[in-house]
Amino acid sequence: MSLSTSSYKGTRDLYPEDMRVRNYIFNTWRQVVESFGYEEYDAPVLEPLEVYAAKSGQEIVNDQTYQFVDRGGRNVAIRPEMTPSVARMVAARRQEIALPARLYSIDNFMRYERPQKGREREFWQLNFDLFGVEEIKADIEILSLSSAVVKSFGATDDMFTIRISDRQWIDFVMHDYLKLDEIRALAMIKLFDRFEKMDRDSFNEQAAVIFGTEDAAMGIESINRLLVSSIDDLPVDVRGAEFAAIRVTVEELKKRGVTNVKFDPTLMRGFDYYTGIVFEIFDEAPENRRAMFGGGRYDGLVGLFGVEDLPVVGAAPGETMFLEFLTAHNLLPDFRSTTQVTVIELGNVDSLSVVDQLRTNGIRVSVDFTNRKVDKKIKAAAKSGVPYVLFVGGDELASGNFPLKNLVNGDQMTLDLEQITVTVSR
Amino acid sequence: MSLSTSSYKGTRDLYPEDMRVRNYIFNTWRQVVESFGYEEYDAPVLEPLEVYAAKSGQEIVNDQTYQFVDRGGRNVAIRPEMTPSVARMVAARRQEIALPARLYSIDNFMRYERPQKGREREFWQLNFDLFGVEEIKADIEILSLSSAVVKSFGATDDMFTIRISDRQWIDFVMHDYLKLDEIRALAMIKLFDRFEKMDRDSFNEQAAVIFGTEDAAMGIESINRLLVSSIDDLPVDVRGAEFAAIRVTVEELKKRGVTNVKFDPTLMRGFDYYTGIVFEIFDEAPENRRAMFGGGRYDGLVGLFGVEDLPVVGAAPGETMFLEFLTAHNLLPDFRSTTQVTVIELGNVDSLSVVDQLRTNGIRVSVDFTNRKVDKKIKAAAKSGVPYVLFVGGDELASGNFPLKNLVNGDQMTLDLEQITVTVSR
Repeated sequence: MSLSTSSYKGTRDLYPEDMRVRNYIFNTWRQVVESFGYEEYDAPVLEPLEVYAAKSGQEIVNDQTYQFVDRGGRNVAIRPEMTPSVARMVAARRQEIALPARLYSIDNFMRYERPQKGREREFWQLNFDLFGVEEIKADIEILSLSSAVVKSFGATDDMFTIRISDRQWIDFVMHDYLKLDEIRALAMIKLFDRFEKMDRDSFNEQAAVIFGTEDAAMGIESINRLLVSSIDDLPVDVRGAEFAAIRVTVEELKKRGVTNVKFDPTLMRGFDYYTGIVFEIFDEAPENRRAMFGGGRYDGLVGLFGVEDLPVVGAAPGETMFLEFLTAHNLLPDFRSTTQVTVIELGNVDSLSVVDQLRTNGIRVSVDFTNRKVDKKIKAAAKSGVPYVLFVGGDELASGNFPLKNLVNGDQMTLDLEQITVTVSR
Repeated sequence: MSLSTSSYKGTRDLYPEDMRVRNYIFNTWRQVVESFGYEEYDAPVLEPLEVYAAKSGQEIVNDQTYQFVDRGGRNVAIRPEMTPSVARMVAARRQEIALPARLYSIDNFMRYERPQKGREREFWQLNFDLFGVEEIKADIEILSLSSAVVKSFGATDDMFTIRISDRQWIDFVMHDYLKLDEIRALAMIKLFDRFEKMDRDSFNEQAAVIFGTEDAAMGIESINRLLVSSIDDLPVDVRGAEFAAIRVTVEELKKRGVTNVKFDPTLMRGFDYYTGIVFEIFDEAPENRRAMFGGGRYDGLVGLFGVEDLPVVGAAPGETMFLEFLTAHNLLPDFRSTTQVTVIELGNVDSLSVVDQLRTNGIRVSVDFTNRKVDKKIKAAAKSGVPYVLFVGGDELASGNFPLKNLVNGDQMTLDLEQITVTVSR
């Protein structure tokens, strides 16, 4: 019986044509975060399970983590997210690390989810985090950088919105404004997390259950007063002292040219570890309206590792959501092979000297030294996305001039190696 | 109780200063293999276990694979090597893929090994493979590329040796020359695999056991005739028809300037899937004498996936061994942060306009907006490996000229933003 050629369920094989797209996304991400002074780090793909048990949220740990017991009896997990790993790394060097620390990584993660559009069991994320700054300047930088990451692909402000809120303000709303106890507040936060995906009647019905029969009408009325579309419309009694951070953040972002920011009273964010500003970058493409990625402040995580706590703000764009955003807004360029020219040997010649010279000139060259006919070789090169083929036979080697065929437009010219170098480098 | 800051046993956290070294190695690899026309692909970190059961060798599957049963009852493994994954991917597109196909990846793998110098449980490898060429030109390309990969770091021929042999010739030796049956041949191959690490007496003792009392003396005498140091010294009756491929390969490599090649009659290679030329790149540093990486021809693997078979030659350099090679031969350059300049705000100013302009000019800039004293900020920047700090206060913003301090040599100059761009880009 032969083996299956399928990849493991919910994961994807990336062939060169897929990898060109991935590399374009990753390289663009890399360029933007490095221009903001972020430096790359990496952590292992396996972590002790307990790292996630503390703060990642019960759903992720119990239902979605790939976990197993290793041969030494340790409980381990394939990382489902990066935040606990980078918090652990910073905690390990709490005394030595230069602060503020700007760190980024581009890595793969696994979650045991039902595979669906935009969600795969193995997925890739950029994670960028700013450690060691309590002031709101850190939140503003992470938000500016999040916006820059999207715009670096040519996106304009109308293509996406930045929705923001604040976990401290959410706590104020749940406890002081809606008067909910701990358990009901948690249920209400989970309900708000699904606000976008529900019709308003079902939302109200389920909210009524949380408030209880007696308080339902009043509770829903209170929620209505909360659901404003502009930051200035929020009634004074729904603000609390905690609202100031949201207001300052929005204003400072405007000064920095980030104007597509919107206060969103329904925004909660799933992870338990957020402690301040939270945000989501929302795709405004009609066919794609949903959160692309999010982030926020999580000041309590480094301290879990037995060291003095450290303030942190961060965000984590994902490859899949980005790809769908770029596709929906028609922002992906055409990609060709990284290989610039394929050499086709005519007859029994050795193209070695030509190939060596082109490589020395910095050109990426492959050689088709199969025994197929020339037209088959040209077809194979075209199929693999190589833009040029170069013919090398005995006469050409003697004269130093070689026919170069452009596979994109069909043009063919006879050139020497320096001219070929210039042409294929364009 | 607080969480441990240690990474999972046998794995490593990479801080920015470690990541600079990794990125240098990976980027250099990438440049060389792409100059030979290889294109990048990627496969999932998890594979069905059966993919390895067929060909990876029993030790790896039974003793070293991280394997578990997923929530859907599937037997899966964290990949311990790349070859079966890329063979699976090529098999999945057997009809469509343009041949010859040159593919490479840079990925992490896990094996459950006792952690020791040069061996970690999570490790990274470059894998490059040439699919679809039966002729020895493919073997020669993979060997030339393997040499180019090492030399691209500035290594010279005296720093490493390429040791080669051929699995078909090894089969001839075991069966036709040494007259061993299948089981004894396997034991002898395993013994040869440890040849370098044993003294000659122990080797002979164990070889005698394999031959059996009666044939021991003759067998060891036959082995002695085999152990030549030059390809020309091999007696005619130990050559067989299979020896021709080794000879041609060595000669063709010489033509291509690859002269540090050595026929090694003791070279076997652990994996079961090799079918032709096999080789190892051997580090000649006195403190480090051992195989850095290896490769060879494995023509039977694609066919295991139920499609027409396809010839393949490939190799897989590892990060850890490379790092030790580069360190031993003093080939690693000095690395500094990817961040080129850190802006230090003097007093209550907003450096936004300066930072924006520098980023627009392509400079990678971080801002220290903590409330620490200026000398603390300079120290933090120096510690993080940033080469320059730039001071931005009210007077500087008014004049457009800013003090720029070089943290490497201590020089300080007052410059405008264009001059700063030129200086930090050098």
